[in-house]
Amino acid sequence: MHSSLVGLRISQTEDLKTAYTDVVSMGYCRYAFVGSDLFQHSDTPKLTDEKIEAILPAIRSDQIHSDAGDSIAGNFVGYVSSWIDCDAPDAALRTASEKCLLKELNWAAHLALRVVCISLRRLTNPNLARILTSFTITEYAPVRIWISVPMSLLEDFPDGGEEGEDPRESSPWHWWTQLVILAGDTSESFGLLLELGADLPSESVIRRWLSEPVSCLSLSTDIFLLNSKGYPVLSGPHQSLNSQIIVHGECKHERGLTVFQQYINWLWKTANENKTPYEKHSRGLEDQLQEPLQPLQDNLSSTTYGVFEMDSYKYTAYEEAIYMALLDRRKNPGSVFFTSEDFPPLTDAPMRTNGAYTTDKQVIFILGAGRGPFVAASLQASERSGCPVRIYVVEKNPNALLTLRHRLETEWKDRDVHLVPGDMRWLSTDLEKADIFVSELLGSFGDNELSPECLDGAQHLLKDNGISIPSSYTSYIAPLQSLRIHQEAACHRDICSANTRVQKPLETPYVVRLQNFQLLDDPKAAFTFTHPRKDSPISGLTGDNSRFTTLTFTASQDAMLHGFAGYFDAVLFGKIDLSTHPHHHSPNMFSWFPLVFPLETSVPVRTGEQIVLHLWRCVSTRHVWYEWALTAPVTTKVHNAAGSAYKIGL
Amino acid sequence: MHSSLVGLRISQTEDLKTAYTDVVSMGYCRYAFVGSDLFQHSDTPKLTDEKIEAILPAIRSDQIHSDAGDSIAGNFVGYVSSWIDCDAPDAALRTASEKCLLKELNWAAHLALRVVCISLRRLTNPNLARILTSFTITEYAPVRIWISVPMSLLEDFPDGGEEGEDPRESSPWHWWTQLVILAGDTSESFGLLLELGADLPSESVIRRWLSEPVSCLSLSTDIFLLNSKGYPVLSGPHQSLNSQIIVHGECKHERGLTVFQQYINWLWKTANENKTPYEKHSRGLEDQLQEPLQPLQDNLSSTTYGVFEMDSYKYTAYEEAIYMALLDRRKNPGSVFFTSEDFPPLTDAPMRTNGAYTTDKQVIFILGAGRGPFVAASLQASERSGCPVRIYVVEKNPNALLTLRHRLETEWKDRDVHLVPGDMRWLSTDLEKADIFVSELLGSFGDNELSPECLDGAQHLLKDNGISIPSSYTSYIAPLQSLRIHQEAACHRDICSANTRVQKPLETPYVVRLQNFQLLDDPKAAFTFTHPRKDSPISGLTGDNSRFTTLTFTASQDAMLHGFAGYFDAVLFGKIDLSTHPHHHSPNMFSWFPLVFPLETSVPVRTGEQIVLHLWRCVSTRHVWYEWALTAPVTTKVHNAAGSAYKIGL
Repeated sequence: MHSSLVGLRISQTEDLKTAYTDVVSMGYCRYAFVGSDLFQHSDTPKLTDEKIEAILPAIRSDQIHSDAGDSIAGNFVGYVSSWIDCDAPDAALRTASEKCLLKELNWAAHLALRVVCISLRRLTNPNLARILTSFTITEYAPVRIWISVPMSLLEDFPDGGEEGEDPRESSPWHWWTQLVILAGDTSESFGLLLELGADLPSESVIRRWLSEPVSCLSLSTDIFLLNSKGYPVLSGPHQSLNSQIIVHGECKHERGLTVFQQYINWLWKTANENKTPYEKHSRGLEDQLQEPLQPLQDNLSSTTYGVFEMDSYKYTAYEEAIYMALLDRRKNPGSVFFTSEDFPPLTDAPMRTNGAYTTDKQVIFILGAGRGPFVAASLQASERSGCPVRIYVVEKNPNALLTLRHRLETEWKDRDVHLVPGDMRWLSTDLEKADIFVSELLGSFGDNELSPECLDGAQHLLKDNGISIPSSYTSYIAPLQSLRIHQEAACHRDICSANTRVQKPLETPYVVRLQNFQLLDDPKAAFTFTHPRKDSPISGLTGDNSRFTTLTFTASQDAMLHGFAGYFDAVLFGKIDLSTHPHHHSPNMFSWFPLVFPLETSVPVRTGEQIVLHLWRCVSTRHVWYEWALTAPVTTKVHNAAGSAYKIGL
Repeated sequence: MHSSLVGLRISQTEDLKTAYTDVVSMGYCRYAFVGSDLFQHSDTPKLTDEKIEAILPAIRSDQIHSDAGDSIAGNFVGYVSSWIDCDAPDAALRTASEKCLLKELNWAAHLALRVVCISLRRLTNPNLARILTSFTITEYAPVRIWISVPMSLLEDFPDGGEEGEDPRESSPWHWWTQLVILAGDTSESFGLLLELGADLPSESVIRRWLSEPVSCLSLSTDIFLLNSKGYPVLSGPHQSLNSQIIVHGECKHERGLTVFQQYINWLWKTANENKTPYEKHSRGLEDQLQEPLQPLQDNLSSTTYGVFEMDSYKYTAYEEAIYMALLDRRKNPGSVFFTSEDFPPLTDAPMRTNGAYTTDKQVIFILGAGRGPFVAASLQASERSGCPVRIYVVEKNPNALLTLRHRLETEWKDRDVHLVPGDMRWLSTDLEKADIFVSELLGSFGDNELSPECLDGAQHLLKDNGISIPSSYTSYIAPLQSLRIHQEAACHRDICSANTRVQKPLETPYVVRLQNFQLLDDPKAAFTFTHPRKDSPISGLTGDNSRFTTLTFTASQDAMLHGFAGYFDAVLFGKIDLSTHPHHHSPNMFSWFPLVFPLETSVPVRTGEQIVLHLWRCVSTRHVWYEWALTAPVTTKVHNAAGSAYKIGL
């Protein structure tokens, strides 16, 4: 949703002077914007050309732009005349509507208004769509068009809609969606103005609406209740709606219309104070497309490490997993671990000599150590468990190595901690073998930062009975509706060039902090990787980590399928896990946002219809990438074929 | 279809030497290409990696490329092993299939074969599609992939298909179509190899197949009949199939396998000799996209005029219409026509003086005279009818005027024929008014070369009781399936630049000599224009020739909707008309090919499903253009919104 502002719809043009003062002064106790009719027509819409020519606007230029040079154009929403019906069955009404609509739109553009508002009244509006699209393409001034629709008809519209229309398609959501499709790329200049009644529709209807780019909610003063002190308040469900709001209707309160604005601002302030850490850390990133990190190919920046390290849940979980693993290996008879040992300071790493080597410590390899948070977690776990450890810190990023070297010489200089610069896949076989691998190489989709390839590549340095933290991870994927993300990706199309890594923006996975979205079914498991690998011999680096799965989802309601959202679960050790799965997300963990796989063309789906997704993880000698395609409810192309849009460097 | 060649499938690699001689000598009595298996496997497809590595190809490099430097690589079709099933439910078989397929494809590319052939065995082949797509994208050498499917299952497949598949989707046409969608743009490197049985399926099934890009038909020697002389011949329906052919199977004829090749070549030669004038004049233009002419904006070349003037049907029809009109106006009491008058030579045009003006001749304006064929037709009609005429020859093209002036000074110097250089919309009001307008300003879609705007613009020079030839014209439109045209338009996408007029090739109408196509329903009338206009006052040039129509079609069978084909009917006078409507096309007239309105994304349609098209003719002060959108079976964007892809200059 946009920044939180409250506006007021006024009906009398005489109010404009007050509105002007209200808006221009912009105080806390004022409305941020006003809305009013652009033209006032007589009741007879069947106008001749001459009459249409003669109509004068209800809002004059001097009411918007003052002599002093002030202007409320940017804070003014112009409403198109409500009788206008460009898709009326009656040809004369349709023609008159078309002419008047163009006249009103052009006037609004002339006034430099930023927003014009028009109401939908039926499912199929091809002619309105054509006019709005043409206007948007040809008009020099950028005018946003708010499409006003009721949130629902007759409480969830069991039999609503116009006569002759398919009742399955009669909901205002279908009206809006069809208009967006007709408008193609120009629908990006459309906003949604949702008209709310006193009774809200069912949760699923609201959720579907909130996955649309809602610009504003229209609230009548009627639907406010009075609290014990006589002030207007909203019902519980209404309070949770978080969007720009325009208030309309009469006001009987003695302190005037500002009471509504004050109440709504108070609501927002309260909601803002109650945000979760996840919400706070992702502020400003909502629904923004980010290219997934490629830590194997690129060296991460200190800022990136810094953000990661703020996620205390993750490090606590790792410490706990290492602690449990140390305790478990003490109990485990197969372990080479011996008890009752202190933590003697060691200045040199013990090197393997003639193949004969013994140790009384658990050997931990931190694979991809970054700036070293897992070293601290391992030392902590060691102290808590009473199990001594020797730690090898493996890192390939030369910048992170400088930080690690400094910590080694200061914080860890009395500990059995050793730095091993280099790529974990090419570690010297002269090193002693590890009891425990500790790594955090996970991406938003689990394996998408090539954790499987990295850990398989290092596995020759793990003892036969050695373990890996994490021991396994599984990716999950679910069908996604999010017009905003579809539009964001589509509008990248025109700016793609040889300079950007993204060549086909609708075939590229993105990391997205999803906000304006809904899932059309529960996520399903896609790919699982387990470490260490037991299943097959590892031949070379790429091994056989390619995967193919076919998943069948069922659409929970009529929707537009814009892509798929990816999540993961990682088992660190035993019951200790990390999860971004929406049903059991690790509390307050904010290191990962979902990975979105877009579809080139959005796909309409019906309630109960099957969605069949084919998903591949492809591995070549130099790259890993995903490909995806649908075969139901329609067949699509194979997206990102041969990694032509996006691939991850090995 | 491609150039007509006959190939032979051989089963024994020992035959390769003979095949080599056959193909390289390329005589009339030889096969033009050969096909054979690339690899020969044992019966056990469940191969280990080691076994797959060890398999050697059935075709060796030295069998394709001779020591002398000759090669049959370009005339060789390599068949992929038939056991390969990349979408097998069994994971081991799938994995082995995938590895072997890649091995075979790479071997074919190494041998520089131009064609590889693989069979489909079920509807859904996402994994095969992904492998073929990846191979096509990454392989440097251009290898065409022929997809082999039976023309039908069990005679029109009433209950055919694999278990568990939707019987509506079990036809091989669905298999092929789904593969093409999955492959996206790379499907352009796919060809279709249709396997024919002895019994052909129903006409509608054949028609649907022939709208696909059929590369080759596969005929078994079994399905040939023997004629009275003991030679193999095809049944009547088989004879009409016009495509490259590959023959396979045993030969018991004493003269060997060449008898089949000789017979098929004889069939083609005969068919070629029986082509219609329409077919002869459009040779080489089949399914090619041509930008529609803009004779108002651009001056036509002499060649273009020359091609038009070869269409004798058109000029005969016009002469007949003028003849009938002259006879009619003699009978008509409202006419200012007087009988019994010869054809006196006049060297100067009579000019209006003080508003008083009389004439005993019918005044004909040839509007857009080109190189003058209608002058000749008018003079001829005048002589036949005995009605004297005065002819004003109006033309704006300065090059055509040079030709007209020459003819005026030679052929027509003794006739009452006068040259009026200039645009018919801006003719001097000093001219006397016309009894008859004669024009041929029609495009493939009737009004698309702006005949309405031109004739309305000239109407002030038509007498109140004057008439226009043509008196009216109506455009027709029908839903179209043509993968070839969709692919042609899609592959223009990448070459669009500021230098070409076409910016969005999938939103631009094209003139196309349709060959590889089918209509999914009968054409329906779109827009009608009548001359002279009586209905409303003409204000300025653009008048009100904008139009909007909504047309509902019903799909005759499961198909892919790739766009719409446009036609027209023009009433010249009374019952004399010109038509490109497929149900009553004027015989042998070849001046117009259909106009195709593409869809950006092809739309799958089901038998009996409604297709709802919205079509606009939009008029601004400077341009005319069409916009179009679907709202059923799915909603599409408004194509060519605001004329952003293509518009016609006024």
